[in-house]
Amino acid sequence: MLQIKRNRIGLNAILLASTEAEEENKLYRQLRESGYIFCSGKVGSMDTHKIVAAIETAAKRNEVVDGSLYREVHALYHSSIEAVQGMTRGQAQIGELLRTVGLRFAVLRGKPFQNPEEGEWIAVALYGTIGAPIKGFEHETVGLGINHI
Amino acid sequence: MLQIKRNRIGLNAILLASTEAEEENKLYRQLRESGYIFCSGKVGSMDTHKIVAAIETAAKRNEVVDGSLYREVHALYHSSIEAVQGMTRGQAQIGELLRTVGLRFAVLRGKPFQNPEEGEWIAVALYGTIGAPIKGFEHETVGLGINHI
Amino acid sequence: MLQIKRNRIGLNAILLASTEAEEENKLYRQLRESGYIFCSGKVGSMDTHKIVAAIETAAKRNEVVDGSLYREVHALYHSSIEAVQGMTRGQAQIGELLRTVGLRFAVLRGKPFQNPEEGEWIAVALYGTIGAPIKGFEHETVGLGINHI
Amino acid sequence: MLQIKRNRIGLNAILLASTEAEEENKLYRQLRESGYIFCSGKVGSMDTHKIVAAIETAAKRNEVVDGSLYREVHALYHSSIEAVQGMTRGQAQIGELLRTVGLRFAVLRGKPFQNPEEGEWIAVALYGTIGAPIKGFEHETVGLGINHI
Amino acid sequence: MLQIKRNRIGLNAILLASTEAEEENKLYRQLRESGYIFCSGKVGSMDTHKIVAAIETAAKRNEVVDGSLYREVHALYHSSIEAVQGMTRGQAQIGELLRTVGLRFAVLRGKPFQNPEEGEWIAVALYGTIGAPIKGFEHETVGLGINHI
Amino acid sequence: MLQIKRNRIGLNAILLASTEAEEENKLYRQLRESGYIFCSGKVGSMDTHKIVAAIETAAKRNEVVDGSLYREVHALYHSSIEAVQGMTRGQAQIGELLRTVGLRFAVLRGKPFQNPEEGEWIAVALYGTIGAPIKGFEHETVGLGINHI
Ligand SMILES: [Mg+2]
Ligand SMILES: [Mg+2]
Ligand SMILES: [Mg+2]
Ligand SMILES: [Mg+2]
Ligand SMILES: [Mg+2]
Ligand SMILES: [Mg+2]
Repeated sequence: MLQIKRNRIGLNAILLASTEAEEENKLYRQLRESGYIFCSGKVGSMDTHKIVAAIETAAKRNEVVDGSLYREVHALYHSSIEAVQGMTRGQAQIGELLRTVGLRFAVLRGKPFQNPEEGEWIAVALYGTIGAPIKGFEHETVGLGINHI
Repeated sequence: MLQIKRNRIGLNAILLASTEAEEENKLYRQLRESGYIFCSGKVGSMDTHKIVAAIETAAKRNEVVDGSLYREVHALYHSSIEAVQGMTRGQAQIGELLRTVGLRFAVLRGKPFQNPEEGEWIAVALYGTIGAPIKGFEHETVGLGINHI
Repeated sequence: MLQIKRNRIGLNAILLASTEAEEENKLYRQLRESGYIFCSGKVGSMDTHKIVAAIETAAKRNEVVDGSLYREVHALYHSSIEAVQGMTRGQAQIGELLRTVGLRFAVLRGKPFQNPEEGEWIAVALYGTIGAPIKGFEHETVGLGINHI
Repeated sequence: MLQIKRNRIGLNAILLASTEAEEENKLYRQLRESGYIFCSGKVGSMDTHKIVAAIETAAKRNEVVDGSLYREVHALYHSSIEAVQGMTRGQAQIGELLRTVGLRFAVLRGKPFQNPEEGEWIAVALYGTIGAPIKGFEHETVGLGINHI
Repeated sequence: MLQIKRNRIGLNAILLASTEAEEENKLYRQLRESGYIFCSGKVGSMDTHKIVAAIETAAKRNEVVDGSLYREVHALYHSSIEAVQGMTRGQAQIGELLRTVGLRFAVLRGKPFQNPEEGEWIAVALYGTIGAPIKGFEHETVGLGINHI
Repeated sequence: MLQIKRNRIGLNAILLASTEAEEENKLYRQLRESGYIFCSGKVGSMDTHKIVAAIETAAKRNEVVDGSLYREVHALYHSSIEAVQGMTRGQAQIGELLRTVGLRFAVLRGKPFQNPEEGEWIAVALYGTIGAPIKGFEHETVGLGINHI
């Protein structure tokens, strides 16, 4: 297991999005000890909005963001869209371009900067496969979005 | 140290792009044992073309691609551009949008599919920071491009 | 009430798209006195094409464009698409990116240039809110497209 | 009839996509004599994915690509997406932007480079009309994507 | 003079960016009375980064943002980029596409939401002309970006 | 020689941009007999704006557009940008993405619609190669933009 770096919120989000089940517990402990609030999940879809919705639902339910405050939802939203743009590389479209994705996502919230006034930031990572709607006809893809919250 | 998964060319490229110096040797050995040809390097720039050039130069010099064949250079090129698109999330521009990047890149070549006829594929990963041209005013960013070669 | 500038077709379109009901009559009079043909309306949607259609329908019905001539419909169409691009800032997608809009639109046709040979131009303005499909979880957005007609 | 240039895979694809029925037989013969494997067809749609699917189905059925190999399907896919990007000029959306297309497509596979090690390449061309969903309210459009295969 | 609406941070930013010198004082007073911190300025350029820099410099100098905190600079930066995307409609490029702009910009910081926990937001507006590098060969353009800060 | 179709302004522009010197005279005669005003030329560059400028300069010098009227220059400009978008497929950048182009361009002005009220339209076509700045490491590319004028 990589010893995580406390201040690398983005890389830690990618690790969480790409870690296999058996290694998750160790990673969870390290993230908690590093002061992160986080959640992760799976989503497979041909619709971009379902990926954004899955991330938002998980982040609200796990209290990574306060779903009653638009400023928190707005911060998460733009992180998610940036992650989707990285994952789709050019056009934020999946099924409309005849491709499908199978992804794990992770959302981390924490304080990656030394100056305490820099406050909290949020990272959304996507890791999985993108490709034709035929099993195995797909390659990996990654996306990461980071925002102040 | 994460035990790498042999068939995850993209995740392995991200690992190589994000691994600290002290852990590199172990990762190198695992990648070699898994049959990958690879290289990595650093590039900081406000010009997209310098990032693409740094990747291409390293990949040719380390014989990850055959620089005398356009089809290999073409495969690498489109992987690099997809990685840049993921890293920039929306507009493949750096200095023109008044931002700068400090990146590590990795190029992996190998056979990630079980069917031997699927042949070789190439992955380009970028990991580092993007932000204002002021030290510390930056956050992490990631990009990944994968292509058949 | 701002005294409108006759030759600012774009700013006048934004004014018309953002003016409250009580001030509309004064603005209408000023626009008519300045020689503009115009219309305005409301549209709320998660589909980009419904916004483009609402603009086109209103502009035809109010004879801002001649719906029997493709060159006029083409001029209006590209103005509308440019306004949508400004309103969406990056990806011309609404519901697919899990957002919704509540907009007022305005279409102005007139002669904003002193040289009479520059002929007629058309401006499409959008003003309203964009955000999550939750009431109040939204911020303002603006778009403007201008074309010769 | 233009005498085709053997090494211009892209221009030949555009010729095939834009040739009228009566001239097709002469073109077919020339393309075969030049060593190309190819197919062509028609597609009209407001959905980008239906265009990509029509190309893929025709290319598999006519054995221009081996549909059992992802690397071949991947090469064709990226050629098709590049052709769609050229045809749509900016946003790879059709109906969502309230426009429709009537296209002929062509897929050519061959060896356009003198060096035999450059191997096979694939070209996808689109030619037809794009415009409002009203007959005659449309203008021509072209797209071309080329990839190593 | 339009009586400004206190909670319309975006429209107020556009007003400030498009108001003529003689009307500025009245608008300044209204904005101050509404609790906004703001600044405005002019920039003409063929380089996107000079526009972003002009906005950032003015916002720091006028203490609309705290230039020593990355989270504030990051919030302003993304607002500026969204405004640039709206102003350029599709490609965030000016001189590279052989066009030039003459713009007024405005930055407003305030509390546009009734719920005090929604805190402060920032709006960047651009208004001016875009066109060929020939005097008078240009039309109006607008851009607006809004972010939590 | 293909007998050109009088009403296919876009395809005729592509033909003119892709025709070899020895066949040009025949094509010129056909285009003139079909009532087109046109010009063509060559441009090789890593800068998008040089391509747009080469087209504009040729079109003005050959009186395909009236360079003293912004509405004509505006119509040509948007046709050129659409052709560039088709030629670059996704990002209207050349050298910044470490690629270079060698193109022939053509500009045609005529009346492609039967209804005389549809008036004049303009087509800009680009045909040539795009690739690495190494001779032979390039493939073909095409772009087409059409506008009312
Ligand atoms: Mg950022
Ligand atoms: Mg791919
Ligand atoms: Mg324009
Ligand atoms: Mg290519
Ligand atoms: Mg927003
Ligand atoms: Mg058009």
